[in-house]
Amino acid sequence: MQSGTNLLKVRDYNRRLVLEMIRLGNGVSRADIAERTGLTSQTVSNIVRRLLDEGFIVEAGKRRLEGGRKPRMGLRINPGAGYALGAHVDRDEVRVALLDLSGEVVARNHHGLFRESDPSEAIALISDSVEDVVGEAGVERERILGLGVACPGPLDPSSGVVHEPPGMPGWREVRMKEVLEAQTGYEVVVDNDAIASAVGERWMGSARGAQDFMFVYKGWGMGAGLFIGGQVYRGKTGTAGEIGHMPLDPNGPECSCGNRGCLIRYCSPQEISAAVRWRLQRGEASILREDFEATPESVDFAAVRRAALADDKLALGELKRSARVLGNALVGLVNILDLELVVIGGKGFGGIGYIYEHEIREAIERRSLYPDRREVRVELSTAEEDVGAVGAASLILHTYYAPRMRGLREV
Amino acid sequence: MQSGTNLLKVRDYNRRLVLEMIRLGNGVSRADIAERTGLTSQTVSNIVRRLLDEGFIVEAGKRRLEGGRKPRMGLRINPGAGYALGAHVDRDEVRVALLDLSGEVVARNHHGLFRESDPSEAIALISDSVEDVVGEAGVERERILGLGVACPGPLDPSSGVVHEPPGMPGWREVRMKEVLEAQTGYEVVVDNDAIASAVGERWMGSARGAQDFMFVYKGWGMGAGLFIGGQVYRGKTGTAGEIGHMPLDPNGPECSCGNRGCLIRYCSPQEISAAVRWRLQRGEASILREDFEATPESVDFAAVRRAALADDKLALGELKRSARVLGNALVGLVNILDLELVVIGGKGFGGIGYIYEHEIREAIERRSLYPDRREVRVELSTAEEDVGAVGAASLILHTYYAPRMRGLREV
Repeated sequence: MQSGTNLLKVRDYNRRLVLEMIRLGNGVSRADIAERTGLTSQTVSNIVRRLLDEGFIVEAGKRRLEGGRKPRMGLRINPGAGYALGAHVDRDEVRVALLDLSGEVVARNHHGLFRESDPSEAIALISDSVEDVVGEAGVERERILGLGVACPGPLDPSSGVVHEPPGMPGWREVRMKEVLEAQTGYEVVVDNDAIASAVGERWMGSARGAQDFMFVYKGWGMGAGLFIGGQVYRGKTGTAGEIGHMPLDPNGPECSCGNRGCLIRYCSPQEISAAVRWRLQRGEASILREDFEATPESVDFAAVRRAALADDKLALGELKRSARVLGNALVGLVNILDLELVVIGGKGFGGIGYIYEHEIREAIERRSLYPDRREVRVELSTAEEDVGAVGAASLILHTYYAPRMRGLREV
Repeated sequence: MQSGTNLLKVRDYNRRLVLEMIRLGNGVSRADIAERTGLTSQTVSNIVRRLLDEGFIVEAGKRRLEGGRKPRMGLRINPGAGYALGAHVDRDEVRVALLDLSGEVVARNHHGLFRESDPSEAIALISDSVEDVVGEAGVERERILGLGVACPGPLDPSSGVVHEPPGMPGWREVRMKEVLEAQTGYEVVVDNDAIASAVGERWMGSARGAQDFMFVYKGWGMGAGLFIGGQVYRGKTGTAGEIGHMPLDPNGPECSCGNRGCLIRYCSPQEISAAVRWRLQRGEASILREDFEATPESVDFAAVRRAALADDKLALGELKRSARVLGNALVGLVNILDLELVVIGGKGFGGIGYIYEHEIREAIERRSLYPDRREVRVELSTAEEDVGAVGAASLILHTYYAPRMRGLREV
């Protein structure tokens, strides 16, 4: 149910909006902010004064204007005013990053998980790793705003409980937020890996300022993080983004969800390496042949990736086929959602993301509707393997600083 | 770009919100409204007082409460306080409806179009038809808030210009709003048929109060109207909802958009009747055989529909096949968008909507994710053939009365 709004919520929203303009704008002035937001100069001045007093922003020198107009004082984020920790858990590893307020990574690390079915190992590893990066960066604890955690879903971001991520059998109703807050003393925000990646990309990647975009995240599993109207979109029950279970081929392989030809059946690392092994079994030529004949299971996704990077036709062919199926799915979603941007990222695209980027861009350029009326950008996330950890840290920044409509309309 | 917000916008938003609560709630009281919106009793009282003074609402008698609490005065919309006109243009007809403020249809009519390539014929017909229904209903002109027009897209709702609807070759950059305002003297709002249907369904159909839902509209063409977070969703360039061009079968027939196996290739009336004729050609049994052998082209969609209603196996089979493909597409969209409701409607579903409703409901119940965590409703619009005209009229009510976030955040 929508709720009414009041002056306090409005003040907080306007403050977040001004902070976002300063963050996104390159040395934006008070007058620029008033112009672009429609707020009065007085309101903008008051908000800026308070942000300066609190140390969140700094004055960054006057900027000359054309036509002899009075130069305007530019404003910038003060990067050292605050820090955010991010941790990303996937099936087989934990990655941690420490970000300053401008979104720069000041320290990072990663460790493999030995027992993928044991959430307590992952949680202990997060606790230790965050202390390590804070120590390494030499940042005072008081300056750390909180710890964001990105996990495979489904999960409940309000309680911070991770339900039952597929492929992680020991994980059931894990109270991630509660346990980590007790262990670390930081405020903890938990969200799924795709949404965290989308938030990170909007905070400091190619989605800065984007209103309607999708981040396609591929780790061990696959999901989409959606921004709609500049806000994170979660759907009615919080499960939005399950892009892996879009049925795309009525004659395709059966999927555990009950459909045939779901996207995940063409895009998961396991399916791609299985398809390569099947073609090797059939006798097709490839630089992977020798390894395959010695130990078939050695031809895993890492091997396929290495072979593709060495220009192996078979490995490249399977990756391109997978990328074309994803491109097809995204053409449909661009047509329905009229997105301005699609970003792909995550470990599952590591090293070979350029193949997907190319095929998706081509599919959208050639086969989505209204090519003359709109341009849809397709980008590979620049955060690479850290996308989840950076995204997780940005959840903290987003919680504290993003101008979210949530506060304006929900109870 | 998001904009700041101020007290005037907030007041207008709160007023709309209170009006919506009264409209949706069955004799809701001031105290109920305060409780549900989080607004103070004072704010609610002031807004209600003004709405009573203006005649938009009436007090509808006291309601007893359990536990001996003080009875509360119920509030209702005053249906006769205002009226809205709606006109729906499709390729071959114009339908018009007059709605009162409660959303009841008080008068309606429809006329066929002789020259589908001539927008001026359609516009003249709208002008005449709206005068007819106003006269028939005996409503004073001053009480009519405006005229909503639903058209096939793409179009620009802000200028009211219809670009180039597919299948309507004479229609190019038609200044619908401008011309109709000059001809009728009413304020005109133009929107696409799928969005108008969605707005209508939310105003007075099965989507009342729904936050995240999709209306799948099928007329001569096909489109989806999306509500996201309780707001109409248009996408980055205003073309959101092009569900017909979701590629669903890589081995399917080629589509004009450059893809293969697009949804529209399985769902348009033309494709369905062509498939039936092809099967008749191959000699399959059907009650349509005699007609087909006399005049093949007499087996059009209307004939297929009649045959299906007479339980003809061939006709039913083709409609079910089409419904299954749509069900499949919707399973993917429910998984990605986590919708709470899918409504289907429009002339293309006329008479045989129940077949689609059944197949879609079954597909979503059986094959969408998280069946234990959520219920996704599937409904056939009750507005039947008038869905576009009723939706068009509701555009006017929506413009005047819906609590839209738009005013709170856009310039």
